Amino acid sequence: MTGPVRVCPECGRQFEFTDPAWRCCGVPMRLAEPPAAPVPPAELAGRPLTTWRYAEALGVPAELWRSATLGEGITPLLSAGDDISVKVEYAAPTLSFKDRGVVLLIVQALAAGASKVIADSSGNAGTAVAAYAARVGLPAEIFVPDSTSPKKIAQVRAHGASVNLVPGNREATAAAAIEAVEAGDSFYASHVYNPVFHLGTATYGFEVWEQLGGRLPETLVLPVGNGTLVLGVTRAVAGLLAAGLIPTAPRIVAVQAANCAPLAAAWRTGSAKPLAVESSPTIAEGIAIAAPARGAEILAAVDEIVTVTEEQVLAGRSELARRGWYVEDTAAVCWAAARASYGAWGEVVVPLSGAGLKTGWTPASPA
Amino acid sequence: MTGPVRVCPECGRQFEFTDPAWRCCGVPMRLAEPPAAPVPPAELAGRPLTTWRYAEALGVPAELWRSATLGEGITPLLSAGDDISVKVEYAAPTLSFKDRGVVLLIVQALAAGASKVIADSSGNAGTAVAAYAARVGLPAEIFVPDSTSPKKIAQVRAHGASVNLVPGNREATAAAAIEAVEAGDSFYASHVYNPVFHLGTATYGFEVWEQLGGRLPETLVLPVGNGTLVLGVTRAVAGLLAAGLIPTAPRIVAVQAANCAPLAAAWRTGSAKPLAVESSPTIAEGIAIAAPARGAEILAAVDEIVTVTEEQVLAGRSELARRGWYVEDTAAVCWAAARASYGAWGEVVVPLSGAGLKTGWTPASPA
Ligand SMILES: [Zn+2]
Ligand SMILES: [Zn+2]
Repeated sequence: MTGPVRVCPECGRQFEFTDPAWRCCGVPMRLAEPPAAPVPPAELAGRPLTTWRYAEALGVPAELWRSATLGEGITPLLSAGDDISVKVEYAAPTLSFKDRGVVLLIVQALAAGASKVIADSSGNAGTAVAAYAARVGLPAEIFVPDSTSPKKIAQVRAHGASVNLVPGNREATAAAAIEAVEAGDSFYASHVYNPVFHLGTATYGFEVWEQLGGRLPETLVLPVGNGTLVLGVTRAVAGLLAAGLIPTAPRIVAVQAANCAPLAAAWRTGSAKPLAVESSPTIAEGIAIAAPARGAEILAAVDEIVTVTEEQVLAGRSELARRGWYVEDTAAVCWAAARASYGAWGEVVVPLSGAGLKTGWTPASPA
Repeated sequence: MTGPVRVCPECGRQFEFTDPAWRCCGVPMRLAEPPAAPVPPAELAGRPLTTWRYAEALGVPAELWRSATLGEGITPLLSAGDDISVKVEYAAPTLSFKDRGVVLLIVQALAAGASKVIADSSGNAGTAVAAYAARVGLPAEIFVPDSTSPKKIAQVRAHGASVNLVPGNREATAAAAIEAVEAGDSFYASHVYNPVFHLGTATYGFEVWEQLGGRLPETLVLPVGNGTLVLGVTRAVAGLLAAGLIPTAPRIVAVQAANCAPLAAAWRTGSAKPLAVESSPTIAEGIAIAAPARGAEILAAVDEIVTVTEEQVLAGRSELARRGWYVEDTAAVCWAAARASYGAWGEVVVPLSGAGLKTGWTPASPA
C-alpha cells in the first residue's frame, strides 16, 4: 500500500503515506513527490466520469479511493460573458470544492489504519470530513466555534459525527482539535496541515484544462485563506508544465477579503511572509484567516494577490444569482475580483466554491 | 430552428417546437417524436463532460442549449452496498434533478420567442425555473403557496424572479399560474404539462447506462408524483432498446409516499387511471401529488408502484446521511423502498433527488 510521501520543509524528514504524523518542527509538511500530470487529452477519452480519470496525478491506492469517494469533481465550466467563465464547484457531494481534498484525507486515514478522525472547521471542510468519514464508516469528531449556526451543526450530526463546540474564536477551535489529536490516536483530517489535500484540489486545475480542450485560460482567479485551492491548482499547473501538456503557466491571481488580508498586504510590500494586519469581520468567512499557516508557501506560488470589499462581494453574489448561480458569500469573491479587473486579466476562470443554501441569503429588495 | 414536435393525445393535433401552446383538449400533450438514443459508448468517449454528449437524444438547437445550460447532468453514480447504487442528483446547479428538464423548458421558451416565463411550484422546480430564466435573461414569475418557506422564496427572488404568493393549497397555486398564463403572453414553463421536460430527465437514464459501461441495472427505482423523472427515464429506456443499445428493459419501480398514493392505489387494483384517494400530509412533499395530470401515462409506463411510510422515509434519510449523503426527505423515498425490498429487485439504482440543505433537518438525537 503506497501513496504520496510528505517531507518536513525544516528538517527534511520524510513521512510515508501510512504515517499519520501531521506536523514536524512545528510547521506544516509539504508533498515530497514532484507535481504530476494526467495522461494527455486523447487518452482521457473513455475514462470514468470522475476525478479518477486523473489517477496518475492523484497517486493514491485505487481501492481506497473507490471506497471513500462520494463522486467529487467533474463540475460544470460555463461562460458567464465578458471573458469570464465560472466553474460550478458547489455542484458537489457536500456542496463545496472542499470535497476534492477531503476525499484524499480520508483515503490517507484509511491507509494509516485510523480508528477515528478529528477535524476543526467553522464551515465547509468540517461538513465534508463528517460526510466522507461516514462514507467509510470511520467515527469523526468535528470541532467548531460555539457560534456556528445550528443548521451546520445539524448536518454534521446527521452524518453521525460528534460535534465539539469550542468557546472563542477560530484559533481556539483549532487549538482544541489539536489538543485532542495530541492526546489520543485519532487521525487529524486537517485541510490546513495535511498537504495530501492539495493532491485533491489539483483536480480543479486538471478539469479546467480538460474542459477547455487541453489548455488553461490566461488567468486563474482563486480565493485564498489557508490556500487549500491555490496550493492544489499551482501544483496542477506545475505538473501540466513539466509534462509538456501546456506551453506556459497561466497567471494565478489570489483573492482575499479586504477586511482580512494578511497575504495581500505581504504581496503589496514584497514580504515573503504574511503580515500581521488588523482584521475585521467579513462576510467572506470561508477565507477569513488572519494568520495562514502556509502563508509563505502561498506567497511563493501566486503571481498576484488582490482584495475585494464587502460591497463588492455583496454585489458579486447578486450578479451571479442574476445569471443563475446562487452562491454563498465567500464564493463570490473571485467573481467580484474578476469584474473589478475590467478585463485586464484576459480570459479568466473563477470558481463558485460553495452553494448559496450553505448560508442562505435574501436580496436587499424583492425584484 | 427546429426541435421536438408535441402532439395532443385526444385530437392528434401537432405543435411545432416554436409554438408555446401548453395544453390541448384540456389534457397534457406528449412528444410526437419516437424515443431516441445517444450514440454508442465508443463514440461518446471524448465528447463534452455535459449532457450535451447525448445531443442526438436531446433533439434541440445546440446554440439555444448552450446559452441556457447551467451545467446540469453528469452526476455521480456510486455503490452504497447491498446491491444498491445511488445517483447523486443533488450535485446539480440548483441542487436537484429538476435542472435536467428545466433547461429544455427554457430552451423552448427561447425558441418560441417568449418575453417572460411563468411557473408554479412549491419547491425545486420553481427554484430551477428562476435560475435558468436568469441564465438567459428572461423575466420569470414564480407562483408558490403562501406557506412556502421564506428561504425558498429568498432564493427565487435572488435570481431576479418575481414571487407570487397564493393562498390555499398546491392546486390553487397551479390555478393562479394558469390564469396568469391564459391572461397574457408568457411562456408556461411547466414541468407537469410540457413533455419537453422529459427529454431532459431522460438523460438520467442515459447517464446510468453510460456509467455502468453501456448497460442498465436490473431495476431502476424512481420517485413518482407528477412523473417528471419516470416519464423521462422510461423514454430513455425505450430509446436505448430501439437502438439496440440494451438487450432488454430493466424493471421500472415507482415509489409514492403511503400518505399520498393515488398511483400506487391504482396499480394495486389494476386501474389504468389514478384513484381518488384520501391523502394526508407527507414529509415527501416533492411527490405529494393527489391528482397527477399524467397519471394514466405513468401507470402505463412503469412495472410496479410501491409505497413507503413516513417512518421509512425518516429512517432512509438517516441511513443515507450515515453513508455520506445528506438529502431532503423526498430524496430518501427510493432508497427506503429499495431497502424494504430486501434484495428482491436485484441490482438497483436509486436517485438522491435533492440536497438536504433544501429543507435542512436535524437528527433525532445527537450522535
Ligand atoms: Zn522537521
Ligand atoms: Zn387536442
